[in-house]
Amino acid sequence: MPDSANLTPAAAETYSYLGPAGTFTEAALKQVPAAAGKSWRSVNNVGEALDDVVTGRSVAAMIAIENSVEGGVSATQDALASIPNLRIVGEYLVPVNFVLVARPGTTLADVKVVNAHPVAYGQTHLWLDANLPSHGHLPATSNVAAAASLLASDLADAAVAPPGITDHHDLVVLAEAIGDNPNAVTRFVLVSRAAALPAPTGSDKTSIIAELPDDTSGRLLEMLEQFATRGVNMSLIESRPIGDALGRYRFVIDLDGHILDERVADALLGLKRFSPRVTFLGSYPRADKLAISVIPRYDNDAFVDARAWLRGLLTGEPLPPPARP
Amino acid sequence: MPDSANLTPAAAETYSYLGPAGTFTEAALKQVPAAAGKSWRSVNNVGEALDDVVTGRSVAAMIAIENSVEGGVSATQDALASIPNLRIVGEYLVPVNFVLVARPGTTLADVKVVNAHPVAYGQTHLWLDANLPSHGHLPATSNVAAAASLLASDLADAAVAPPGITDHHDLVVLAEAIGDNPNAVTRFVLVSRAAALPAPTGSDKTSIIAELPDDTSGRLLEMLEQFATRGVNMSLIESRPIGDALGRYRFVIDLDGHILDERVADALLGLKRFSPRVTFLGSYPRADKLAISVIPRYDNDAFVDARAWLRGLLTGEPLPPPARP
Amino acid sequence: MPDSANLTPAAAETYSYLGPAGTFTEAALKQVPAAAGKSWRSVNNVGEALDDVVTGRSVAAMIAIENSVEGGVSATQDALASIPNLRIVGEYLVPVNFVLVARPGTTLADVKVVNAHPVAYGQTHLWLDANLPSHGHLPATSNVAAAASLLASDLADAAVAPPGITDHHDLVVLAEAIGDNPNAVTRFVLVSRAAALPAPTGSDKTSIIAELPDDTSGRLLEMLEQFATRGVNMSLIESRPIGDALGRYRFVIDLDGHILDERVADALLGLKRFSPRVTFLGSYPRADKLAISVIPRYDNDAFVDARAWLRGLLTGEPLPPPARP
Amino acid sequence: MPDSANLTPAAAETYSYLGPAGTFTEAALKQVPAAAGKSWRSVNNVGEALDDVVTGRSVAAMIAIENSVEGGVSATQDALASIPNLRIVGEYLVPVNFVLVARPGTTLADVKVVNAHPVAYGQTHLWLDANLPSHGHLPATSNVAAAASLLASDLADAAVAPPGITDHHDLVVLAEAIGDNPNAVTRFVLVSRAAALPAPTGSDKTSIIAELPDDTSGRLLEMLEQFATRGVNMSLIESRPIGDALGRYRFVIDLDGHILDERVADALLGLKRFSPRVTFLGSYPRADKLAISVIPRYDNDAFVDARAWLRGLLTGEPLPPPARP
Repeated sequence: MPDSANLTPAAAETYSYLGPAGTFTEAALKQVPAAAGKSWRSVNNVGEALDDVVTGRSVAAMIAIENSVEGGVSATQDALASIPNLRIVGEYLVPVNFVLVARPGTTLADVKVVNAHPVAYGQTHLWLDANLPSHGHLPATSNVAAAASLLASDLADAAVAPPGITDHHDLVVLAEAIGDNPNAVTRFVLVSRAAALPAPTGSDKTSIIAELPDDTSGRLLEMLEQFATRGVNMSLIESRPIGDALGRYRFVIDLDGHILDERVADALLGLKRFSPRVTFLGSYPRADKLAISVIPRYDNDAFVDARAWLRGLLTGEPLPPPARP
Repeated sequence: MPDSANLTPAAAETYSYLGPAGTFTEAALKQVPAAAGKSWRSVNNVGEALDDVVTGRSVAAMIAIENSVEGGVSATQDALASIPNLRIVGEYLVPVNFVLVARPGTTLADVKVVNAHPVAYGQTHLWLDANLPSHGHLPATSNVAAAASLLASDLADAAVAPPGITDHHDLVVLAEAIGDNPNAVTRFVLVSRAAALPAPTGSDKTSIIAELPDDTSGRLLEMLEQFATRGVNMSLIESRPIGDALGRYRFVIDLDGHILDERVADALLGLKRFSPRVTFLGSYPRADKLAISVIPRYDNDAFVDARAWLRGLLTGEPLPPPARP
Repeated sequence: MPDSANLTPAAAETYSYLGPAGTFTEAALKQVPAAAGKSWRSVNNVGEALDDVVTGRSVAAMIAIENSVEGGVSATQDALASIPNLRIVGEYLVPVNFVLVARPGTTLADVKVVNAHPVAYGQTHLWLDANLPSHGHLPATSNVAAAASLLASDLADAAVAPPGITDHHDLVVLAEAIGDNPNAVTRFVLVSRAAALPAPTGSDKTSIIAELPDDTSGRLLEMLEQFATRGVNMSLIESRPIGDALGRYRFVIDLDGHILDERVADALLGLKRFSPRVTFLGSYPRADKLAISVIPRYDNDAFVDARAWLRGLLTGEPLPPPARP
Repeated sequence: MPDSANLTPAAAETYSYLGPAGTFTEAALKQVPAAAGKSWRSVNNVGEALDDVVTGRSVAAMIAIENSVEGGVSATQDALASIPNLRIVGEYLVPVNFVLVARPGTTLADVKVVNAHPVAYGQTHLWLDANLPSHGHLPATSNVAAAASLLASDLADAAVAPPGITDHHDLVVLAEAIGDNPNAVTRFVLVSRAAALPAPTGSDKTSIIAELPDDTSGRLLEMLEQFATRGVNMSLIESRPIGDALGRYRFVIDLDGHILDERVADALLGLKRFSPRVTFLGSYPRADKLAISVIPRYDNDAFVDARAWLRGLLTGEPLPPPARP
């Protein structure tokens, strides 16, 4: 859990999240035991959430980092690449499904315009096309805002919203489970200020962002060999433009294991030497709790033994006396 | 240029693009000599544009595939991965900059709500924060729609739009060059139905999408070695979720060179054997016209010579008569 | 079996081997069905044996190429690297053991000087040191010559020789099985002039010799990747000095599989492009008859399928007519 | 220079070498400043030389390890692989050339049988075939023994010997520079008991022997990647049979750099973890005095910096106080 030494009492009690109440992000934050009973601060976007952490207004922020259908959340990845002193301290999965809601009295046949966040719209497109073939789309800034707007104006007749939205708003559900992919899930991370690392659990993940030394052919291959030669598996690699010129990328990478695992630490050393710019985003327990299996050749003992061997070579082992004087 | 054998005369004359007039996509289409004087069809999104091509309504569609700041356009990448029989036949670069426009009579001091497509908003965020610190954001479906909406409703006071928008709409420019990155550029591709390949020019690119055989450690490394061992350079690699489960990715890859270059063809053969699913998106001239340099070990002659050598081994070279009978 | 088109009737009937009768090489030749009942020509060294083949004096020569204890036979490897138009057409294994022989009437206690070929001496060193601690060593040019010399002079009192030597010479065995390693085995190859390849059997080996393009760091790694990316396993790699300067090596390599296996042929093409000098020594049945297992990703069908796919891309698949005209 | 703590005064003064006086090995030992004026002990073979070191009879032994024409000296490589607690502490090059010598009064026309060590015979074969086409070969145990034997018996008429042999024996030179390769050179190493390492000089070499973890395809490639990912170049790799079964090899490897160079130490750690059996043979100055160039990414500072970075991550950098409390 995040270190709170430099925080005011209020900040140490505050968690920021993309609100308002009812969002998938709030559902992720509900999975954090330490956040229970604390102050939750609803913000409008990733930048604001991370700013709360950087400035000490909050002890941590919950942000979406990847969707199983849409892919990596670019804004999150780019913010983590550019804002220093942030650390991921936890990972949480939230199944993503949607309901179609409307003002009381509306029926499906009445719906002409649907208010929806563009990502939610993209994930319910098939259902909407099949059931409301001539609908129009009004974009919203968030899933909850889409629903809330129904009560503020009649520009739209229905909204795509998260299940449970009717707990917060006086709306009715016209259709449930309208997501095109029933297995869709969003991965969230809890981000804190750089400080004490979560302890290794045997089911951990390490996130980094790294650039290549230059655009010579084969550089990405060389970078991946830094992991392979230490038996470190990658569960994610995404490229993101550095932004200064077309064709220049940084790589967002998730590794199996914890920085306190010898093989991961050694791979990070290799990466640090290879790459002109490495950002360590944190080592933290995996949401899926899957144990990481390590072949003995790359386990902690192998590293300890190798160092003892090298030390022996360098210092000169005590030799037995000569057999024949 | 695309083969038009199966198209109606009208379709052979039609190019689809993300409209309306004034978008960056239109600016990209203006760079295509063959499109000059033909019918241009404005559509609302990538799906619609590609559908026009698949159904034969248009001979080709211009779509954005990557932005130097925002990264790959996920919708485009995912559509190209899932719709068969499409081919990229050309690549075009458009510098991306923005102006802030408003209804005549509005001044900067009057602006409280800004209408902007989310991507455009992301690329003008610094300027907007600095110059309109308390503005609100209303999302739009396109850059041109953002501007046009100013004339349809007064929900917003200003809009982020492409330069030249005032040619099409009765609006005034409040500020120019408000993009956060003056070098920002968007890469577009012209997509046609699978047919004749554009001829190699010496400055070509080959685009593919490939999956890994399984999630064994080191598989990505193995895939990249298929390119490295043939001296084929990658200019782009992006992962995209396959969508069926978290942690499963396909890779969108751009290679230097043309499928009619021996080394690229051979790398594609290697990739095809390695990967359970490869989609060839096309070989086409690079927008930047940079010549691809190939080391002699991997040039066409090296491939021809090696085949001749192998053929000699297999058929048995004619041997000189024995020196001593 | 070797092509005999250019050979005189006598040559087509002659096999050369390192003699005289009784050597391990003769034991290897006895394993060749085609050689049964033909003329066998005993020669003094590898150079002479290969010269017989080159000049057409013999249809084939049996030569030792590797010993499980002593390693590769340098003279053979270097001769195969420098003499053109030779092909290995078969591989044979001979268990290597030794007896200590002497003139009739000699006892072990009488032995002061032991005549032995240096390699045989090296492989019986432990036994000789233990049982004849103060013996002297007189080197011989072959194992059989060592034994035969006992009858020509009394410079030595005993000889290290192959089992069965007493069939050919009037000598007595002082000790049997004196080899230090009871599992020692020598690998022989039957070498013919370049011509028709032995047919694939499913248990084949392909031998090559290759040089690196230059001494840049990592070149050997690159060469091995030519095999790895085609799923081709190496069963042997040995370096041999090219001979022009210290530090310049060529590599003698055995690959699992036959040049008529698609993956081996493709790996050879890759190697030929990479290496400035490749010598193909032949594809031939393995002596151990072990079947080579190939993962489906690299089997012949995978190669045929990939080519068909590429051909489709290049020619343009016949497209279905547009769905909507 | 070797540590002499456990040696008797006499042993600390003694150097063993393959004798007798006049051999190339003696020429190598003459290049060792510390050996000047000490006791030199002539031995008969590599085993005896190393035994002197192991038992403390000598402080060090000079042994041949590689010839630019003949390749690695198997006996030396195998002895170093199996005898523990030995270290190479220096490397020396001796140009290899030969003279043909005979008893006074003999002319070239008189020569029918030539006495020669098999390696020397192999390196003068072309000259002998051209100038003495019908000569016979009598093998000798060393180059000097070949010459000396002329005075002990008349079995041979001439001998192949090192230049300078006439300083030691009453013989005449029939022909000079009869070596087939005028650039031939032999590399010798000075071997001592494991103790203090020679200090790094900027032009060093590190010798190791390593086995692969199993015979899975691609293992050698993986082992070489341990060096490549640390920017460590290999100047030599030779395979030697482990000896227990055909097809099992260990690898004799020379690396550029010293074990006290960070990148070499780290590569050795990686190798130690990967390989079930690694023997460190020593780090010592190169005979050719060529400076090793290291790219900055892999120099000592890169390793020190990476460790400092990792330590910072693990301990938690001191954070600036929050910007806004």
